[in-house]
Amino acid sequence: MLMCQPKVIGNVNYCSLKVVNRIQNSNFVPYFLPIQELMSDHDLKYDKRGVSASKNEVHDAIKKLDKGLFPNAFCKIIPDITGGDPEYCNIMHADTAGTKTSLAYIYWRETGDLSVWKGIVEDAIVMNLDDMACIGCLNHIVISSTIGRNKSIIPGDVLSLLINHTQEYLEKLNKYGINITLSGGETADVGDIVKTIDVGYTTFARMQRKDIVDINIKPGDYIVGFSSFGQAVYEDEYNGGMGSNGLTSARHDVFSKVYAEKYPESYNQFIPDDVVYTGSKLLTDSITINNKPMNIGKLVLSPTRTYLPVLKPIVETYRKQINGIIHCSGGGQTKVSKFINKNINIVKDNLFEMPPLFNLIREEAGLSLREMYQVFNMGHRMECYVSDQNVAKEMINIASSLGVDSQIIGRVEPSSRPTIEIHHKGDLIRYEY
Amino acid sequence: MLMCQPKVIGNVNYCSLKVVNRIQNSNFVPYFLPIQELMSDHDLKYDKRGVSASKNEVHDAIKKLDKGLFPNAFCKIIPDITGGDPEYCNIMHADTAGTKTSLAYIYWRETGDLSVWKGIVEDAIVMNLDDMACIGCLNHIVISSTIGRNKSIIPGDVLSLLINHTQEYLEKLNKYGINITLSGGETADVGDIVKTIDVGYTTFARMQRKDIVDINIKPGDYIVGFSSFGQAVYEDEYNGGMGSNGLTSARHDVFSKVYAEKYPESYNQFIPDDVVYTGSKLLTDSITINNKPMNIGKLVLSPTRTYLPVLKPIVETYRKQINGIIHCSGGGQTKVSKFINKNINIVKDNLFEMPPLFNLIREEAGLSLREMYQVFNMGHRMECYVSDQNVAKEMINIASSLGVDSQIIGRVEPSSRPTIEIHHKGDLIRYEY
Repeated sequence: MLMCQPKVIGNVNYCSLKVVNRIQNSNFVPYFLPIQELMSDHDLKYDKRGVSASKNEVHDAIKKLDKGLFPNAFCKIIPDITGGDPEYCNIMHADTAGTKTSLAYIYWRETGDLSVWKGIVEDAIVMNLDDMACIGCLNHIVISSTIGRNKSIIPGDVLSLLINHTQEYLEKLNKYGINITLSGGETADVGDIVKTIDVGYTTFARMQRKDIVDINIKPGDYIVGFSSFGQAVYEDEYNGGMGSNGLTSARHDVFSKVYAEKYPESYNQFIPDDVVYTGSKLLTDSITINNKPMNIGKLVLSPTRTYLPVLKPIVETYRKQINGIIHCSGGGQTKVSKFINKNINIVKDNLFEMPPLFNLIREEAGLSLREMYQVFNMGHRMECYVSDQNVAKEMINIASSLGVDSQIIGRVEPSSRPTIEIHHKGDLIRYEY
Repeated sequence: MLMCQPKVIGNVNYCSLKVVNRIQNSNFVPYFLPIQELMSDHDLKYDKRGVSASKNEVHDAIKKLDKGLFPNAFCKIIPDITGGDPEYCNIMHADTAGTKTSLAYIYWRETGDLSVWKGIVEDAIVMNLDDMACIGCLNHIVISSTIGRNKSIIPGDVLSLLINHTQEYLEKLNKYGINITLSGGETADVGDIVKTIDVGYTTFARMQRKDIVDINIKPGDYIVGFSSFGQAVYEDEYNGGMGSNGLTSARHDVFSKVYAEKYPESYNQFIPDDVVYTGSKLLTDSITINNKPMNIGKLVLSPTRTYLPVLKPIVETYRKQINGIIHCSGGGQTKVSKFINKNINIVKDNLFEMPPLFNLIREEAGLSLREMYQVFNMGHRMECYVSDQNVAKEMINIASSLGVDSQIIGRVEPSSRPTIEIHHKGDLIRYEY
């Protein structure tokens, strides 16, 4: 690690380490970075890129806030502000497509293919809907968009596509009995804030408290995992399983430095050069999957699969038998750790074979399996905890009828402390909490 | 204007004009910009900076979307998705602090004063609440935040302040009988997308359709304007009246080029150098207002004044007599043009004396009065249309009891076409639609 001379600006300690990187790169005036960034999580490559799988700072920032009516539920649930009925509750949720938009931007600029923006719409919507599905909220949802664009490089036809595809995608979900209403949203020209474009949605729903699926994972539970890759009956093509998490790593680890030079607006100028686009691939290079060539750019941009068509019949039939539904988003296969409320060991010893996309990322990134499983979904992005093995089997049948592979990927055991065990071929990766 | 060699990438025409600017600036690799950006609105300095007072592209993008139950209302109003009651409706709204965060960032870096981030929270919240107030929605609102930060330069203590001040500000509004519940939100580390930090909120409310304040402005209406500057009884210090619109112009026109060199992350690298920080002022320079020196950075960062404490008693008492409430946000004093549904002339011939802040901006920017009135609120950010002069006078009394100067700033006349007339001292500025 380079020497670091601390410096104080305002109330923050700054360090000149990255100034050195910048000067080496010689196309920027010096910057200063908060010293705590350089000291924290430096062992994780993911964190060197200015993102955090653990989001510790965010959790610290919100720890004073009220946890809502069901403190261990997957989403915050508040009283029925809009109806004033003690038997009902409200849920308001927000999420974005994150840095996946940056890859869509490069792909669109390189190929002229506008359709990748449709994937971004689905990514941002699904990141909200699939979180809400974890509490059993699958219908009568209102949604609003917040789009911030750099008008200098993102023309109106991209905006039109983003806004109109939102409506198209909601109509598609409607065919599966999922009713979501678009209320509108805000689209701002903020090129002084947003490098390219930021695409987010916020959702609102009201439901009966008795219908909430809370999280109370118990020893003896079976874990049903629903695959994030393949092609569901409601998908138009093979889905690589990327989702919307780990994109900062996937983008920089897989793709070539040529994109840093061509599109400096596509990445954070404050991260060290040695983690910027360090891969060997071009967006248009291809990889063979199921004996078919797949464009790697499109593979990483696979739209986040929604599990709503699968979860709606499952929740409606087995709501009371479910001990928890976990959306394996930020935190990947360790996401469940945030919802363990007793001394149990989550044993994941029958996971899906690592899909080609994650094999590719691992080869390019050289990440440890420990980090891979903390950043990426690695094959299933949704998991359901249930005590009754027959119910687990029924869930698997429902999923397969919709073309979503699923299997019992593990079980829950008593333990002396909260732990997660991931079995990867011969390796055992153990996380303690 | 420099020569422009068009070039096609994908389906977009690009032009090398700004490449020339970049090369002159010599610290960037070449970029290409959509040619239509260079051709459109080039007469407005505001648009050269990659923002649009008219937001024409955005309006084109959303024109296919349903307009809701009250197509001419200030906010989109949809059926009662959450309650299914035909007598009720739902409102979901979204807005951000826009590029004001970029100025707060520079001010915080220069001075170490964290408190400017509290103003940003209020800006983003008020941009939502004051829009919703225009349809008569002033209570029982749920709010969620969406914060995207560059973790490399925005530390956790800024996040904590943003999130905790949201709760503090809602508690302050509660003292005026305005009940708003924070449901939580999303805070994402997206340094590959966001240069510094983006702060937005989304709000949701359910109300009775009979209580909606629609817009139906008529000849004979009086226009009551509520001042955006001064100090309301619910404000802690003098408010310059900035609001959250026109900040891209105010920042670049007022402040010195030194900030372009020190904080390149604070502006859009795709805009021509001749519109980047072209002013003469430093953030810590001062201006004398009411015989007191005021710090210019703080003056421009004055938190957007909320009118809720004023509008709540007004709407509760005179809901049925109000023909329209207009929040003069984007579009400034011409905002009402979007809600004129008949041939009328909006005559604004008794506006507030231009506040010192806008005088300063005009001196530094050298903008025409025509553009100033289209970009900035120029002294009042909220206006109420009413036929009964006595009701107008009562509104003025209510506002003054809360320390908000207000006056009849104009009237509505019959006309052969929709027009707005602004009388500025000897000048008449006429906008036709």
